[in-house]
Order: sequence, then structure tokens, then C-alpha cells
Amino acid sequence: MSNQDVIAAVASPPGMGAVSLIRLSGTGVFEVAEKMLKRFRKDGMRPRYTFRDDVLDAEGRSIDDVLVVVYQNPGSYTGEDVVEISGHGGIHVTRRVLERCLECGARPAEAGEFSLRAFLNSKLDLTQAEAVMDLITAQTDLAAKAAREQLSGNLGQAVASMREEIINLVAHVEAYIDFPEEDISPDTGAALEASFVHLRDVITGLLGTARRGRLLREGARVAIVGAPNAGKSSLLNALLGFDRAIVSAEAGTTRDTVEEVLDFEGYPVRLIDTAGLREEGSTIEKEGMARARQRMEEADLVVELVDASQAPGARLAEGALLVLNKTDLGEDGAWKDHEALRISVLEERGLDELRREVAKRLGGGAVGNSGGALIAINARHQDCLRRAEESLEEARQMLVSGEEPEFVSLPLREALHAVGEIAGRIDTDEILGSIFSQFCIGK
Amino acid sequence: MSNQDVIAAVASPPGMGAVSLIRLSGTGVFEVAEKMLKRFRKDGMRPRYTFRDDVLDAEGRSIDDVLVVVYQNPGSYTGEDVVEISGHGGIHVTRRVLERCLECGARPAEAGEFSLRAFLNSKLDLTQAEAVMDLITAQTDLAAKAAREQLSGNLGQAVASMREEIINLVAHVEAYIDFPEEDISPDTGAALEASFVHLRDVITGLLGTARRGRLLREGARVAIVGAPNAGKSSLLNALLGFDRAIVSAEAGTTRDTVEEVLDFEGYPVRLIDTAGLREEGSTIEKEGMARARQRMEEADLVVELVDASQAPGARLAEGALLVLNKTDLGEDGAWKDHEALRISVLEERGLDELRREVAKRLGGGAVGNSGGALIAINARHQDCLRRAEESLEEARQMLVSGEEPEFVSLPLREALHAVGEIAGRIDTDEILGSIFSQFCIGK
Repeated sequence: MSNQDVIAAVASPPGMGAVSLIRLSGTGVFEVAEKMLKRFRKDGMRPRYTFRDDVLDAEGRSIDDVLVVVYQNPGSYTGEDVVEISGHGGIHVTRRVLERCLECGARPAEAGEFSLRAFLNSKLDLTQAEAVMDLITAQTDLAAKAAREQLSGNLGQAVASMREEIINLVAHVEAYIDFPEEDISPDTGAALEASFVHLRDVITGLLGTARRGRLLREGARVAIVGAPNAGKSSLLNALLGFDRAIVSAEAGTTRDTVEEVLDFEGYPVRLIDTAGLREEGSTIEKEGMARARQRMEEADLVVELVDASQAPGARLAEGALLVLNKTDLGEDGAWKDHEALRISVLEERGLDELRREVAKRLGGGAVGNSGGALIAINARHQDCLRRAEESLEEARQMLVSGEEPEFVSLPLREALHAVGEIAGRIDTDEILGSIFSQFCIGK
Repeated sequence: MSNQDVIAAVASPPGMGAVSLIRLSGTGVFEVAEKMLKRFRKDGMRPRYTFRDDVLDAEGRSIDDVLVVVYQNPGSYTGEDVVEISGHGGIHVTRRVLERCLECGARPAEAGEFSLRAFLNSKLDLTQAEAVMDLITAQTDLAAKAAREQLSGNLGQAVASMREEIINLVAHVEAYIDFPEEDISPDTGAALEASFVHLRDVITGLLGTARRGRLLREGARVAIVGAPNAGKSSLLNALLGFDRAIVSAEAGTTRDTVEEVLDFEGYPVRLIDTAGLREEGSTIEKEGMARARQRMEEADLVVELVDASQAPGARLAEGALLVLNKTDLGEDGAWKDHEALRISVLEERGLDELRREVAKRLGGGAVGNSGGALIAINARHQDCLRRAEESLEEARQMLVSGEEPEFVSLPLREALHAVGEIAGRIDTDEILGSIFSQFCIGK
């Protein structure tokens, strides 16, 4: 465990409730607790056991009667000694308890600092630390599931395997640096090539989850376009009125930003208003039309709604999900060969299918509840993986074209670094270790 | 312990945070916990010990990994078996855990229901239950201190002593009902009279804390009136700019009502705008003036600010705290004999004294940090005490005028009932017990 000063923060949500939780962590936290609590003895508290105590002010008067639990390093969230204080969840009384923590030697924790310490003490890797916040901000079951799986370490393990494989590559290549007289044997060359191909496949697979990751974390923007007679407003109302509508508050202390979000098979979906978009040929408000087009372009998915009882006209949106409404009125024969979803908002038919199809397209066909792990990388992971992909390709081509090992090792090490960044493992000692243990050149 | 169904609620404040707490209580709560948690065994959990577990959904997939503590009746807040679950403090994940509690047999707790059960199981009396909410909503140290003292039982004890004394009176008086041939002896009469006087003093003392109680709970409204040249805006700004300004959110889910409250020596103070009020004789906007006068009347205290360098004019407000400003310009001789606070907003002199004087007047001279207990009754207590006071006075006068004991006992029992309501003790078994044990008439 690293030797860290004592930090303190209110860990429960801000505001008023029955109970608030104040968390302290660091070297010397038990001394801080002994100073501020009436009965706490820094050497006498049984770890993980809840006991009652009083937070005292400087004059020895009780600020609040509380429940206290101590965790002894390394058996805590941060891996440090930790004290958790549950008090009455008032705004004033909670602030006074926190102030008392600071008066007794703690300092206010910075955002994420408990998780940072957990990372520094190897309780979590970086992907797990990120998953903690993903889980807290998750708006749907699927988003929460992806966060929990990442928190359980599945992405970290995938990345760790990749790192091992790259370390292996580096070790192989660098083994030849000190022995310029030796050429890489055809067998070794083939093994290295296979490794490159495997790594590229793994990276491609992970990169393929980036869109899902973004949509689960940020929510998807779905635009519904269509002529007024297509039943767009009725569809919007039907979807909004559905009981899965969820309300979520934005992170932080801003209290005003509350937004309505729908849950489409686990994807948080915001429906975008595209009022103003009209079929070509009809009267056009130019400005409204431009605004609607821009919103369509910003959307992650466009649903184009048409009246099935009318003959097909010009399509409004390239690549949109085509949905035929008003099937209760009968379908115009000309739609026969069009691949489209058939619904009737009036008769409430096909809405579930529509939600499922939207979710399927958002997830890129991989909604992810199917057996295996649900991986959904974030933008930072994506950036690291893209750099790793480039560097690996560069190294592979250098190797193929017969470059000297010392040159090949440079992009390989860049790839290793990029992959290491994902889980926050970027020291190079391991490579040295790998060279001298695995390969035992020793001659 | 009463046999109660299992209730569940989020006990931490609503919104997003690092940690949320869900609390379950009732008969069979361990069965509910066993159903929803992965490793929980209803007979195998050590009380008060924190352990990790997973909340599982109906399909056995983890909703959240959590910390769990169980409390065994009667050693819990409610006096029932209790399970507390700390999870990741996201809005969605917390709601899912709560939903899971309900699926597994709990029902949503009503407002205050945990404290109600604590009361029903004699863990708290009514005054203590009320104090829990007072502490949570307290906006200042003094308000919190009053709440904590009430929570510790000081009001309950005062009331319990009164009840004993009234029970004694009832017992004495009723002892004569069955023995009509006996008269109340002069000695007994004197003792009863002394008891009535003592009870009246105690009640008067408690009633005297009602104003403080109201001001601490609801905040005080202080109006500052004065002619424009008196420096009213400067004073307002100086007081508002003071670093004790506190912000508090209203109870419940309303997210918009945030109000600025000042802390005057422990009294939450709202400064009331009285713009529009002008000295008599100057030009008057009638409507503005009427509005300002109404606000003055609604105020708990009016501060009248005057320019000390000018000769005294007509006073604006009856009974206001007179404050002479601009003492830096020198004081007009005619103010010499006026009892007033002297300040200079410009030179920042006298502001602390002003705050102290305002607080003193709000507290009725008993700011309450002086040694003894800080009692501050609420409107309900006040109502009960007034009824008790009336009934006791009625009983006393009946006794003095020689009414039959059976008639005297009626208002006495009313007084007992009224006092008993304060702490929620209103059964009469004790009186019977008292009669037959203490008095041992037994002949």
C-alpha cells in the first residue's frame, strides 16, 4: 500500500435523505477517527463491524450520532485503511460531520480519488475504475450489465491477454537485436505472423463494440421522420407513453437538467424532433427543413415512417429504417416488395418489434445478452486500440519487408504501450522479465 | 416486537452518488434477503458485520455487487430484524435493487414508516421520532443541537416527569372516590396544590421555548426597514455577503426550491425585502407601502435602520430593534438618550453585535448554549401543553372549590392524556398500576 494522506468525502448523493455516508481513507485515518469520534479507539476497532458512536465538535459536543465501520488495509475499496461514517442524512448535519473530518486532519477528496487510490493499490485496473462510474451513471439494465461486466474485469482480462501476446512478440523480436548474425527462422516468422493476425482480430472485435459502448453510455439519438400524414406524432406519443420511459438526472450538482430517456431493449434512447421535414415537392419552409436535416444527420438512427395505405413516394432519408404505418387501413400494393417493418400505431401493433429492431440496429446486430461477455468499450479504449492496431500493422509490415529487429521493436513497444494504457499498465519491467525468464538465451 | 411485514426504501438521498443505501425491516426480512442476494443465508449472517454480496435478478444475474449488514431485533433502529444494503449510487442501479426487494417480498415503505416502527417498538418516543426529521432538516448548528438534544430524549424525560406527577395527582384524587366519607386532609391538599403550581411552572417553561422551536425549524423572518438614506441596501449586502450564508434545499422531491438562508448565531434567518416603505411625510407609493407594511407584520423581528448623523425623525416600526448606522459620520446629539445599537456598515463595525442582538431577540433572551438542555418544542407539543395547562387549571380550581373527586379526576385525566400525547404514551394502565401499588389502600 502506498503511503497516502487521509481524504474524506460524502459518498452518498447530495441532498436530504434518511442516511448519509461519509468515507475516509488513507494512512492515519484511524487517528483522524479517534479525534473526531467519542468512543473510537484507533487500535481497538474490530474491522467490518458496525458500531455506534458520536461525532464530536472541537468542544466535545455531539454533532451527530452515527454508525461507524472500519476496514483495514488491504481489505477495503481503496486498499488503504478506511473509516465509513453513516449519519443522519441532513444537508447541514452532513456538512458539519465532513467539516469535522477536515478539522481532525483529513482533506477533501478530489473527484474519483477513492477509485484512483484503489487503482494505485491494484484493487482495480483502469477499466474497472471507469466501470464504477459507468455503473453509477447507467440508465438502463443493459448499460448497467455492461458496466458490471467491465467492473468484474472482463475487458481488463482481454487486454491483459493481448499485452502478454505483444510482450511475447517484443521479446522474440528483441532477442535478435543482440545477435545480428542470426536471421529470424521461417518457423518463428510464421508464428509471429499468426500472432499479428490474431491480435488484429481481437482488436477488430473490441473496436466493434465501441459504438455500442458509446450508445449505452451516452444514449442513442433516434430521429423519426415522415410526412405529417404518416402518423409521426401518434408514434412518438405511443413510444413516449410506454411505461419504460425513464427519467435520469445528469451527473454532478446541476439540479435542473432532467431529461426523459426511453429504454429500447436496454439502449437509452432520446427521440429527436424532426418537425419541419417535408416530402420534396410539398411547400417547404427552408429553415425548418435545414434544421430537421441537421438533426437527422446527428441521429444514431433514423426511422422513416410512411403511410402504408398510400403509394410509395420519394424516400426522405438514406439508410433509414423503413416503417409502414396504418397497416390497419390495408397496404398499397406497390409496397409489396419493400423490406420494411409493418406497424399500426392506432391498433398498437408492431411497436415492440419496432423497439427491438431499433435496438438491434443500434447494437450493430449484437445486443449482447447472448451467452458471452458483454463488452462495450469507451472512447478512451477505442483510441488506445486504434493506436495499437496501427503500430502492430506497422511492425508487421516492417518484419515482412525484412527490417532490422531494433526498428521493428519500436512500433511493437508503441503498441504495447497503447494496449497497456487501457488498463493502466504501462511499465516495461515486465518485458525485461519476459525476455530473461521465458527465453533463457543464456549462452 | 410487533409482527410487521417487510418494508424497503432507499435511505440515502435521491440522486446520483458513490454509494446508495437501501434499508429493509420487518418480520421475515432475512428470507427476503436470502432470495435476492447470492450468498446470504437467512440463519447464517453475523449481526452488524459487513460482508460483500451480489443482488441477483430473477434470472440469477447480478444487478449490483453490494455490502450488506444485518441487525437482529431488537438491536436495530426499528427494533425489528433489519437488512441494510449499500450499492453503487446510481439512479438506475439503485432503483433496480429496490425493485428486486419488492419482487422478493418487501413492500415500499411509507414516509416515516421506519421511525413509526421504531416508535411502535419503543425504540423512540414520539418526540425522538420527530427529532430525527428535525435533525435531518436542520439548517444551522443550533437547530441541529436542539434536534439532537430532543433525540437524546430530554423533552421526553421532561414530559415523563410531568406525567408521573399528574399520575400521582390522579391517583391521590381517585383514591378518595371510593371513600366518600373521607375528606382530603389539609396536608394532602397543600401537597396537591404545590404539585399543581410546580406543573404549571414546568409547562410555562416549556411553552416559552415554542417560539424558539418554530424559528429554529422554520427559520426566522427578519425585516430591515429604514429610509433610503439610512443605508439599508448596504447593510443587506453586508449581511448577505457574510460567509455564513447557507443554502438549503426544501424537503421532498421538489428540485427547484432553493433558498438562501443566513445563520445568525444559530438561527436560520431570511431577510425580508421591505422596499417601498418610506418615512411618513415623504412621497408615498400607496401600494408599495401597504405591501411593505404587511411584510413587516409577518416578520418575526423588525430592524429599523436610521442615519445616526441626522436628527431623529418619526419611528417607522413599533417595537423594532433600533439600529443607528453611519456612526463613522458622527452621531447627531439628539440620539444621545436613545437605546440603540450603533453600527457602521461602511467601516464594517457593529455587524457581529447586530447579528447577536437579532439572535438574542429571536430566542427571547435564551439563545440556549448556556449549560442546561436546549429545549425547543414544536407546534404539536405546544398544542398538547396548552391543553394540559388548561385542564390542570380547571382541576385545580375544582379542587379548591371543593368539588367531588370524581369530577376533579376528569380534567386531570384530560391533562394526563394531553401530556401523554407529546411522547405518544396515552394508555391508562399505568394509573391503575400506580393506584394499586403506590397507595396500597388494601383495607
